[in-house]
Amino acid sequence: MDGCPAGLALAESDLQPDLDRRRPGQSHIVTQRKESDTVRIVSGVFEGVTLGTPIGMTIANEDQKSGDYREVMEKYRPSHADYTYDAKFGVRDWRGGGRTSARETAGRVAAGAIARKLLAVGHGVEIVAWVSKIGALVASCDVETVSAADVEQTAVRCPDLAIAAKMIEAIEAARKDGNSLGGVVTCAVRGAPPGWGEPVFDRLEADLAKAMLSVPATKGFEIGSGFAGTDLTGADHNDPFYMAGDRVRTRTNHSGGVQGGITNGETIYFRVAFKPTATIMREQQTVTRDHHDTTLHGRGRHDPCVVPRAVVIVEAMAALVLADHALRHRAARL
Amino acid sequence: MDGCPAGLALAESDLQPDLDRRRPGQSHIVTQRKESDTVRIVSGVFEGVTLGTPIGMTIANEDQKSGDYREVMEKYRPSHADYTYDAKFGVRDWRGGGRTSARETAGRVAAGAIARKLLAVGHGVEIVAWVSKIGALVASCDVETVSAADVEQTAVRCPDLAIAAKMIEAIEAARKDGNSLGGVVTCAVRGAPPGWGEPVFDRLEADLAKAMLSVPATKGFEIGSGFAGTDLTGADHNDPFYMAGDRVRTRTNHSGGVQGGITNGETIYFRVAFKPTATIMREQQTVTRDHHDTTLHGRGRHDPCVVPRAVVIVEAMAALVLADHALRHRAARL
Amino acid sequence: MDGCPAGLALAESDLQPDLDRRRPGQSHIVTQRKESDTVRIVSGVFEGVTLGTPIGMTIANEDQKSGDYREVMEKYRPSHADYTYDAKFGVRDWRGGGRTSARETAGRVAAGAIARKLLAVGHGVEIVAWVSKIGALVASCDVETVSAADVEQTAVRCPDLAIAAKMIEAIEAARKDGNSLGGVVTCAVRGAPPGWGEPVFDRLEADLAKAMLSVPATKGFEIGSGFAGTDLTGADHNDPFYMAGDRVRTRTNHSGGVQGGITNGETIYFRVAFKPTATIMREQQTVTRDHHDTTLHGRGRHDPCVVPRAVVIVEAMAALVLADHALRHRAARL
Amino acid sequence: MDGCPAGLALAESDLQPDLDRRRPGQSHIVTQRKESDTVRIVSGVFEGVTLGTPIGMTIANEDQKSGDYREVMEKYRPSHADYTYDAKFGVRDWRGGGRTSARETAGRVAAGAIARKLLAVGHGVEIVAWVSKIGALVASCDVETVSAADVEQTAVRCPDLAIAAKMIEAIEAARKDGNSLGGVVTCAVRGAPPGWGEPVFDRLEADLAKAMLSVPATKGFEIGSGFAGTDLTGADHNDPFYMAGDRVRTRTNHSGGVQGGITNGETIYFRVAFKPTATIMREQQTVTRDHHDTTLHGRGRHDPCVVPRAVVIVEAMAALVLADHALRHRAARL
Repeated sequence: MDGCPAGLALAESDLQPDLDRRRPGQSHIVTQRKESDTVRIVSGVFEGVTLGTPIGMTIANEDQKSGDYREVMEKYRPSHADYTYDAKFGVRDWRGGGRTSARETAGRVAAGAIARKLLAVGHGVEIVAWVSKIGALVASCDVETVSAADVEQTAVRCPDLAIAAKMIEAIEAARKDGNSLGGVVTCAVRGAPPGWGEPVFDRLEADLAKAMLSVPATKGFEIGSGFAGTDLTGADHNDPFYMAGDRVRTRTNHSGGVQGGITNGETIYFRVAFKPTATIMREQQTVTRDHHDTTLHGRGRHDPCVVPRAVVIVEAMAALVLADHALRHRAARL
Repeated sequence: MDGCPAGLALAESDLQPDLDRRRPGQSHIVTQRKESDTVRIVSGVFEGVTLGTPIGMTIANEDQKSGDYREVMEKYRPSHADYTYDAKFGVRDWRGGGRTSARETAGRVAAGAIARKLLAVGHGVEIVAWVSKIGALVASCDVETVSAADVEQTAVRCPDLAIAAKMIEAIEAARKDGNSLGGVVTCAVRGAPPGWGEPVFDRLEADLAKAMLSVPATKGFEIGSGFAGTDLTGADHNDPFYMAGDRVRTRTNHSGGVQGGITNGETIYFRVAFKPTATIMREQQTVTRDHHDTTLHGRGRHDPCVVPRAVVIVEAMAALVLADHALRHRAARL
Repeated sequence: MDGCPAGLALAESDLQPDLDRRRPGQSHIVTQRKESDTVRIVSGVFEGVTLGTPIGMTIANEDQKSGDYREVMEKYRPSHADYTYDAKFGVRDWRGGGRTSARETAGRVAAGAIARKLLAVGHGVEIVAWVSKIGALVASCDVETVSAADVEQTAVRCPDLAIAAKMIEAIEAARKDGNSLGGVVTCAVRGAPPGWGEPVFDRLEADLAKAMLSVPATKGFEIGSGFAGTDLTGADHNDPFYMAGDRVRTRTNHSGGVQGGITNGETIYFRVAFKPTATIMREQQTVTRDHHDTTLHGRGRHDPCVVPRAVVIVEAMAALVLADHALRHRAARL
Repeated sequence: MDGCPAGLALAESDLQPDLDRRRPGQSHIVTQRKESDTVRIVSGVFEGVTLGTPIGMTIANEDQKSGDYREVMEKYRPSHADYTYDAKFGVRDWRGGGRTSARETAGRVAAGAIARKLLAVGHGVEIVAWVSKIGALVASCDVETVSAADVEQTAVRCPDLAIAAKMIEAIEAARKDGNSLGGVVTCAVRGAPPGWGEPVFDRLEADLAKAMLSVPATKGFEIGSGFAGTDLTGADHNDPFYMAGDRVRTRTNHSGGVQGGITNGETIYFRVAFKPTATIMREQQTVTRDHHDTTLHGRGRHDPCVVPRAVVIVEAMAALVLADHALRHRAARL
């Protein structure tokens, strides 16, 4: 991770909790593959403080079973990246350990934990994400008040406990059925000052959108009122300004904390859609690498629903975008 | 515009039609501000062919009325960028002609027209966008077949003619009411070969999401099945592969033409949410630049709904992203 | 020019003096082509202050004579870019007005003038360059004390007046002879604080080297002791530290103000080699575009020596690099 | 290393020879510190072929002696980066293992070896560098003909054997004297086709200059005729074109294979100045971290002259720049 300023107190213990929230095998509703995901800082920190130079980290891979992946050498898994990587590069590491593995998100989480600490220490910014939808089950949560502790109450990471119980049932049913589920993660960023974000191309919401759509299995991003906001008229959608003491605030927050690509000091909130996991324990139609029709039957240990684990990835990516804009903002004025 | 290869036949007449589709005053349902938006190529093209060096273009601004903008010097318009620019930079061009003006999208459209020609000539790629939702009115259109001619049949640029008529009525009603409407633009990219897009951070959908969320007034992006795809199970959502002659294809296209961030040869399609125009002819609560509560009453000529004009901006941004990835792809293999 | 912070007082009158020092026709020893090079700021400045958004500038080209350039359509001028552009792009604007024209440096000078003001106002940094060598004539000047006024005393911009007179004679002799001369520009940057520059790849001297070698006709760059420093031993070359009051200083400055890629607070100084102008009024062997041997005879109005005009380009590029690092440095510490 | 195309045959054995040429302890004239510098490829290569994704490599550090570095915790070593890192970041890893250690060049050499193979396999490009000057001793070598075998004949890597012997004597004398020497590395790139390099800012020589000045201990870069070319007139310096069969060539090569920032098909050659090693076994004046005058006496094992080992670093950086431009060139034409 490059770009972290010097002088931030940092240790592995700042990173490990987020990595533990991402790793497989942490609860009964996710994949039973065991990965300890122990992070080690190998450079960029000296005597407990960042040096201003790149922070190198390693996360050893302890549970490789290359035998699990033999069939995918010959057959393209539907809605995976097997075919497109072959189409692009003409060669592919079919063992599943490469860039198309969701395992690459461990690195994002480690870097995100540093960004998160930078934002907390330097700016008092807090980032909390949670599962707001699994399949047809929709939770109701307040972006202004949901806490990290609220999120961690259940394995499904949904603070709406009544819905959370149903979500867990649905995920377990999907597992038994060899099927999978998708859902939505909502994320709130509280405490960002007005002024972060750059005009035109690097608007804060544009960088958030790119960051979120770079996460595996994502299909959509919306900020503030999002797609639902298109149902409103301007008179209802506009956020009136008012003075709250000496602070400029808005009465509503359809903008999602960003106006003209720049933060206005209100809570930033957005939603990210995750498709149902592509790996299912069903027979599916597909083709072979040498272009014959065939069928593929899923085997092994996989998540029926990645959304609870994706919560921490969304937080990490949000932290990285916000920290980047916090630093860029330092060049805004003479 | 930098990065266009040498050897592309190019003239102003390749750019002007798209600029005419974007400009205000083109039909009765959009703003009556008159801007001819005549583009002139000033560098990068010689004897009708691109030189491989940056293409400089100018679009003169002919309808400035700085008198219209006096009130915004003192009062922050709700859900505009007035306050956030002041918060960021401590100074702001209150005349409205700067980077926060929707007028900056003219440059995007001009550049997009070059990218579009590059894609058409070099790769047979076709890009068509249309209005698929205004307020609560939802159109039904087939991403595989909608043509540019279909889109241009009505001023509202919705190929579903029955819905289009209602959309026009709704926009005219909003105008009379001093109000505004938002909506959704759907875009289809047809004919892109398998292999475009880069692993991990520069996935095609990530770059599309960033490009779209950089357009003024956007609040959301979804590709393929999008947010609605979270209602499906993996068994229903996965796109089975099959051989169509010697071409690998998918039976369904929930992926939206992109898998693992890389095109798979199917039609790329995505949707972009636009909030209702922030400028309304109503009295609104707000604050002054020197931090007093006040009210603001909109005046002048503005769009009750920018979505029909945004169609060409979405096409332009899509073309720029696709052309960039087409060029990047040239470095994929030895 | 992008990246200038908001809040800098700026007007065309800050830019024009440097443009006047660059333009042809300013004295009897340079080309007699007349270009007024009048700069106009078209965006990014409002009520005399920078907005933090890109600063657009135009410099109209008033003295085009496309008739002068007909022969170069067919014949490659030796040591010009005619052949290599054809080799790269397969097409070339033979009228000479494009990116291979030294005229593109006018834009660098305009942007450099902004960077120079930013450095002066924000950091008290002063940048002065001068001609230190023309052909075999070598000047002797003190990098710590040469002033802008010293430089402008003569048309050749060499503060060593005895040598300057000989340089002017040599340039006039070269002109009469249809020949040309090269030389060296030395540049001093005084007042930069310790800490500017980034480790490893973006060392300050690396970015200076790139900036200087991007200027047309340059063949070399050296900082501090440079190539001559290879004659010394470490015991003589090392710069001993000492305390000057509460400031860490060095007794000598072979380092040229940069150690480990980062400024140490001493004067930064470097030298840039310019080859003799490629355009000469002599018959030269060359080849045609369709690959036949031929001869070419130079005609028209050209500089026998660009080095005096290059002084301001070197200053501009130095200012751009320093200002960029001054801004980047803001992200160095928590 | 990111950006290597898919399909290149690659193994550790392609990288180790260059790493062995860089490592300390390889001959009697360099530091006796033992580092085996064994490289291991950990990602990006599968079944012996590059995947088109980043190539991760590790080089374990086997000879750390943190005890050696205790004194530098308190005292700034003259002409090292100790003071400037403190000035920039306010914190510094005084153990010497970080970014200011010449050890970081091992990574450059590993990446450079991949670039070198890419250039050789894909384009028949050959890169050879050698020591052309140590202290006052100047070698005479032909940039068109010096081979890698010629270079490796002596420990000092100077193909002029008579001078090489004197250089070795001089280095041994410097070591006995607790002193150090600098010098010049010359590099030739043969076989690059016409057309590589980008106009204006990313000229090939600009990128080469930046790459070379990013190498520790460098003070200068010159290409083709370089600083000496300023002694010539245009009539002597221009490189006349002629047809050699169907190939456009130049009779002389003062340009150094680059015109207008783009290769012309002739041999690219340039020179890089290295200052005498800053670490010497002498008593030197300096200051402490808490700003008191003091003296420092060098101890331990260090190179009296890094120039022979720098040869492979220059080659590596040249290979990286050329390979980057070879890939960028793919986007030059439709």
